[in-house]
Amino acid sequence: MTVKKMRVGLVGSGYMGKAHAIAYRNAIAAFAIPQGQLQCEMLADATSELAEMKALELGFNRSTGDWKCLINDPDVDVVDICAPNFLHKEIALAAIAAGKHVYSEKPLALNADDAKEMTEAAERAGVKTLVGFNYIKNPTVQFAKQLIARGDIGEVVHFRGVFNEDYLADANLPFSWRLQKRFAGTGALNDLASHLVQLATHLVAPIISLCADLKVVHQYRPIYQASNDDKASVGEVENDDQAHMMVRFANGAQGTLEASRIAWGRKNGLSFEVTGTKGSLIFDQETLSELSLYIAEGHPQTQGFKRILVGPEHPDYQAFCVSAGHGLGFNDMKAVEIRDLFQGMVNDAPLWPDFRAATQVNIILDSVVESFEKRAWVDVEQYDVRAQP
Amino acid sequence: MTVKKMRVGLVGSGYMGKAHAIAYRNAIAAFAIPQGQLQCEMLADATSELAEMKALELGFNRSTGDWKCLINDPDVDVVDICAPNFLHKEIALAAIAAGKHVYSEKPLALNADDAKEMTEAAERAGVKTLVGFNYIKNPTVQFAKQLIARGDIGEVVHFRGVFNEDYLADANLPFSWRLQKRFAGTGALNDLASHLVQLATHLVAPIISLCADLKVVHQYRPIYQASNDDKASVGEVENDDQAHMMVRFANGAQGTLEASRIAWGRKNGLSFEVTGTKGSLIFDQETLSELSLYIAEGHPQTQGFKRILVGPEHPDYQAFCVSAGHGLGFNDMKAVEIRDLFQGMVNDAPLWPDFRAATQVNIILDSVVESFEKRAWVDVEQYDVRAQP
Amino acid sequence: MTVKKMRVGLVGSGYMGKAHAIAYRNAIAAFAIPQGQLQCEMLADATSELAEMKALELGFNRSTGDWKCLINDPDVDVVDICAPNFLHKEIALAAIAAGKHVYSEKPLALNADDAKEMTEAAERAGVKTLVGFNYIKNPTVQFAKQLIARGDIGEVVHFRGVFNEDYLADANLPFSWRLQKRFAGTGALNDLASHLVQLATHLVAPIISLCADLKVVHQYRPIYQASNDDKASVGEVENDDQAHMMVRFANGAQGTLEASRIAWGRKNGLSFEVTGTKGSLIFDQETLSELSLYIAEGHPQTQGFKRILVGPEHPDYQAFCVSAGHGLGFNDMKAVEIRDLFQGMVNDAPLWPDFRAATQVNIILDSVVESFEKRAWVDVEQYDVRAQP
Amino acid sequence: MTVKKMRVGLVGSGYMGKAHAIAYRNAIAAFAIPQGQLQCEMLADATSELAEMKALELGFNRSTGDWKCLINDPDVDVVDICAPNFLHKEIALAAIAAGKHVYSEKPLALNADDAKEMTEAAERAGVKTLVGFNYIKNPTVQFAKQLIARGDIGEVVHFRGVFNEDYLADANLPFSWRLQKRFAGTGALNDLASHLVQLATHLVAPIISLCADLKVVHQYRPIYQASNDDKASVGEVENDDQAHMMVRFANGAQGTLEASRIAWGRKNGLSFEVTGTKGSLIFDQETLSELSLYIAEGHPQTQGFKRILVGPEHPDYQAFCVSAGHGLGFNDMKAVEIRDLFQGMVNDAPLWPDFRAATQVNIILDSVVESFEKRAWVDVEQYDVRAQP
Repeated sequence: MTVKKMRVGLVGSGYMGKAHAIAYRNAIAAFAIPQGQLQCEMLADATSELAEMKALELGFNRSTGDWKCLINDPDVDVVDICAPNFLHKEIALAAIAAGKHVYSEKPLALNADDAKEMTEAAERAGVKTLVGFNYIKNPTVQFAKQLIARGDIGEVVHFRGVFNEDYLADANLPFSWRLQKRFAGTGALNDLASHLVQLATHLVAPIISLCADLKVVHQYRPIYQASNDDKASVGEVENDDQAHMMVRFANGAQGTLEASRIAWGRKNGLSFEVTGTKGSLIFDQETLSELSLYIAEGHPQTQGFKRILVGPEHPDYQAFCVSAGHGLGFNDMKAVEIRDLFQGMVNDAPLWPDFRAATQVNIILDSVVESFEKRAWVDVEQYDVRAQP
Repeated sequence: MTVKKMRVGLVGSGYMGKAHAIAYRNAIAAFAIPQGQLQCEMLADATSELAEMKALELGFNRSTGDWKCLINDPDVDVVDICAPNFLHKEIALAAIAAGKHVYSEKPLALNADDAKEMTEAAERAGVKTLVGFNYIKNPTVQFAKQLIARGDIGEVVHFRGVFNEDYLADANLPFSWRLQKRFAGTGALNDLASHLVQLATHLVAPIISLCADLKVVHQYRPIYQASNDDKASVGEVENDDQAHMMVRFANGAQGTLEASRIAWGRKNGLSFEVTGTKGSLIFDQETLSELSLYIAEGHPQTQGFKRILVGPEHPDYQAFCVSAGHGLGFNDMKAVEIRDLFQGMVNDAPLWPDFRAATQVNIILDSVVESFEKRAWVDVEQYDVRAQP
Repeated sequence: MTVKKMRVGLVGSGYMGKAHAIAYRNAIAAFAIPQGQLQCEMLADATSELAEMKALELGFNRSTGDWKCLINDPDVDVVDICAPNFLHKEIALAAIAAGKHVYSEKPLALNADDAKEMTEAAERAGVKTLVGFNYIKNPTVQFAKQLIARGDIGEVVHFRGVFNEDYLADANLPFSWRLQKRFAGTGALNDLASHLVQLATHLVAPIISLCADLKVVHQYRPIYQASNDDKASVGEVENDDQAHMMVRFANGAQGTLEASRIAWGRKNGLSFEVTGTKGSLIFDQETLSELSLYIAEGHPQTQGFKRILVGPEHPDYQAFCVSAGHGLGFNDMKAVEIRDLFQGMVNDAPLWPDFRAATQVNIILDSVVESFEKRAWVDVEQYDVRAQP
Repeated sequence: MTVKKMRVGLVGSGYMGKAHAIAYRNAIAAFAIPQGQLQCEMLADATSELAEMKALELGFNRSTGDWKCLINDPDVDVVDICAPNFLHKEIALAAIAAGKHVYSEKPLALNADDAKEMTEAAERAGVKTLVGFNYIKNPTVQFAKQLIARGDIGEVVHFRGVFNEDYLADANLPFSWRLQKRFAGTGALNDLASHLVQLATHLVAPIISLCADLKVVHQYRPIYQASNDDKASVGEVENDDQAHMMVRFANGAQGTLEASRIAWGRKNGLSFEVTGTKGSLIFDQETLSELSLYIAEGHPQTQGFKRILVGPEHPDYQAFCVSAGHGLGFNDMKAVEIRDLFQGMVNDAPLWPDFRAATQVNIILDSVVESFEKRAWVDVEQYDVRAQP
């Protein structure tokens, strides 16, 4: 390992900001990153007071109420963007302009054009980029990828992915920025299906055509007033509660992907099943440390889906625990992502998935909307994504 | 119960024929049908020798090598069609012409036009009809229907159904009539997705529009020669190994339905998840005696999917066992169907699903092909199906 | 198959009586027993009116209000005892004296001495005997036995069995004969643990020593009065709600067995895990058509419990269905038992488990009580049980 | 929070040492421990070189090859003992003598006498103690405790606990110190069943009597030689591969506890089922973020085990993630333990479980051996354990 170090500037300290903060520390300990080589240097939030409090809480050395200060700080090497989706572009472009490497939460941008602009800016500036599609960092999912890559299930002929949660299932939950196109873009599509799209292309092949359906189920949501005004108003929901797509992959495989943010009972309901010519595998994020694998070999009497508990034989698990089946958590996946970020920085190695790969996701999401509006299949533009390093 | 009796003539004694034979006996015992009121009267198969052997084996009084004899036999009240799909129409029309009631396996016909012709003939003749969509007879599925009907999960907003098996997953399985359009019609769509379509409309609402995708994955299959000819030939597969559809229901709900006959590891992989505004339910035919139910009420701390083992509190279970959780099997569902058939006969009551309801399924399957060819959404013709009695 | 036939006389038509009645018909159809070779000849119940009604309902040719008439009827070949436990001995001895073969529900007797007397009487009379330990007839359990017998999991070193139900979990359920020693013998031990004991010896080896614990949890239960008397009385429960034992097998393996009739949530909660030197297997009766199998071979990366859905590759499944994973039910296991009974009769072959094997179970149950009273380990008398044919 | 801080000295940096190191960082981030208040001050290992390397890797400020230096270091407030079992006593007594607080891995000691000596020394010295029974720190298990404490499942009548792993299932694994009494004490009993004993008493009530069985299954294990000597030698295994016990609790409940280190397929197979008079709950550590809960209320038709995914409504989860069902890992449980340790230190509050509570566990383990040797039930000495704070 080189003596270089990585000093992080975090923009935004809400849900994902905290997950990142935990992950930095977790990565240092799990992956034995030498003291001082990974520093939580600065945290920016909406006000300097909030930022100061959060920096103390999350263990950052300094804080600022102005993310532009963070971006221009000479002791920040990487800008970690955990701000709401609609701010990704502005912050990333500014960080790139300041010569910083950028680590952004997903989806990269509100649309493909913005994503392309960000990608091209980063590549021109020669900075490294990474986008937080964390589910592929899970050792279990890495193992799934490995099984597919080495042909254990033969040639992939089908991928089914579902990402359902119920965080907006209650129709009385209040109207918010998440439900408005200009702040959030699409709904379940951006929040949830973006992960599926990335997973599917990561595990199978590029998506070359698709047909989609979108639906706002709860069309109006209440706006609760702090004031004493008893005339309740409502806001009109602008983006999808449920999103479906049928896809075709470059290798000829078919797939179905769907997402919902109103699916009662599903809490982190990301699951997929990959079928090949020699076997199948099934993953469910709600039991994130196990993979079910069916291989069509041996006597039919003893064929079945094998429930494999992830352990030290699988990628990156041993950093966390030397015994199999002890179970990793959501935050541990993020620690693997941080390890990737750190390794890329100190070894000057490529990161994955970078802005370019994430742009392909944005292109697909745009195609979904296009297909929905046309009520027909559409071909998907192929951005020149390099293979995973 | 009236003194009338039901004497059955079974046409075809293969896979489903045997399942029916078991079910007749099982129904007599489980539902206490008085001796002699349900008689397995005659069995027809390809040759008189085969029919005689099968009649002995399956417990039918008489046999014939000519199904036309069976149809015209005065001691046959109901013609039970377990012959291959492409024969359904001819046999059913002949039986109807002979004034017999008809109980047919699914899918009713190879296309909607045939199904309509059969429906109209039956209705003109005033005979009763029943189609073997047996999965809705499962006490667990009946319970699901009950939960939905009484609003326990609120208004249905989504249905996802999958019916995957692996009976043709091995690419070296031989070419057969099942793979040819003129004998089998479509592939996984007819065999498997037909059940899903029927289930979805039964549980949710009519399907009014859809967009579909079909794919032959293994395009050629070997033709094994009995002769010594070492030049192996191949047959070209004409129908789909995998079928997908996105649907919209009359009540506004969305759905996704998919089927595969090449999905390694799935043996009777019929599963569905129904999401409503107040809860969700999940069913998986591979664990056919349990239902998972999520109701969004009470403290969030104790919310979760409840695994309910079907028991005497649920429809039709008690006929088989007085204790909950003892588990019903595939054949027991068929016994419930036979009970329905018998009750309809002796009480002169309507049957469900009848030819008319099954015709709607055929219409939807035709729309799937149309959508696939157009690469776009299509609206689905609404046949005048009466509500389930 | 010989031309001989088997004519059954059923004594008792409650819970198990009905299960037997269904199973006779089911067996005829599933196992292609030629018409007339297996006849449900006569049914005896408490009164002639009840017997007549039940015979009609369950499909028996004749009926009687006096089981002694049934036993002496010349057209009855086998006496099928589904009467309460405390009557097994009297009925069996009378049937044996009348030269009838006897098929009895379990446990064979209220204690080992009675069981021995019954066994010896049957052997002297040369009649065949079978006891209804039906769980070993399940194709899935037969498969487990096969795996163990052929060494797939190596040498067995451990057996854990649990049989929990909740049929008496509600403390307000009324006092009944089941709770009194003279009618029922022990409680959960006789009802439930007897199956475990039989399963363990069947799958592993004879049990040679044990240490046990028993407990009446709900000591008093209400006696509800039909009269208007508002002074509710209570009955004192005389037998165990919960039963535990630690055992040692003849092959050196250890085991734990436990049963409860007050375990809320468990409906047919019979499960076992067998550990060997090369692998393990897990079974749960609430998902009776699947077995989990772990074999310690191949790369550790792909080791895991394999969920095998029972299918035509497994013992006796194909009689019910030609496709794997379609699921058998509780009554289907009983049909296998009937098939065994019938085959033994018409082929003059030994039955399993016979009275002798069932007597060993009663000996072990007596040892449980002895150990409980002594608060110490006891050695178990070894009856001369022949190996399963 | 006070301004006091906690500076840790870690003795031993193997398996558990690394888990602790990760947990310290994880706890700081998750529970927002202000920077500098929890310091990883010093690490001791067998040699100064090893200690130095490990300190760098695990993020400790200083290191030493002599644990006695660590104990006497003025900047160490808490001594964290992750050394092998047989060293716990010596290190703890020395630390106590130096006035340090002690955080020890389990089991506290090799026998109850040693544990008592350690407890009494600590209490005399007025230092705080904590023992690493981490499974009770899992938010899911805390929730189970909460449900029991508030009576949701009524009065507890039964506890069944199993802790099976397969880390020594391969009979060819080499002989080691773990298999010798003087270094490890008992085998599966100490390693695994100790957790069950602690969990059972924690969740139900004190254990007042028990009867146990122990067995060495693989009696000899190979000693592999570095030298070229081809005469392989073997070591004789001195402690149990499998351990069973039946127990009675102070509240009258019964229980069974068992552990195995040779149970093929079980990786972290700690599971328990608690049955009460109103319901039951089931936990399985291999799916550590869910609890199954059955409450006997409402209509029987909708009763079933509810699978509850742990979330922010449950104890301590929200520190890790604000969304339910995202899953915690093994290391997260340990972070909760560290949080407890830290809070106890800076708030001068009692810790749980302390040496006194852990001594009761050692007493029970000694009783297990006594019972095994006597082949009979034994009463368990009741140490004066205070209630959990």
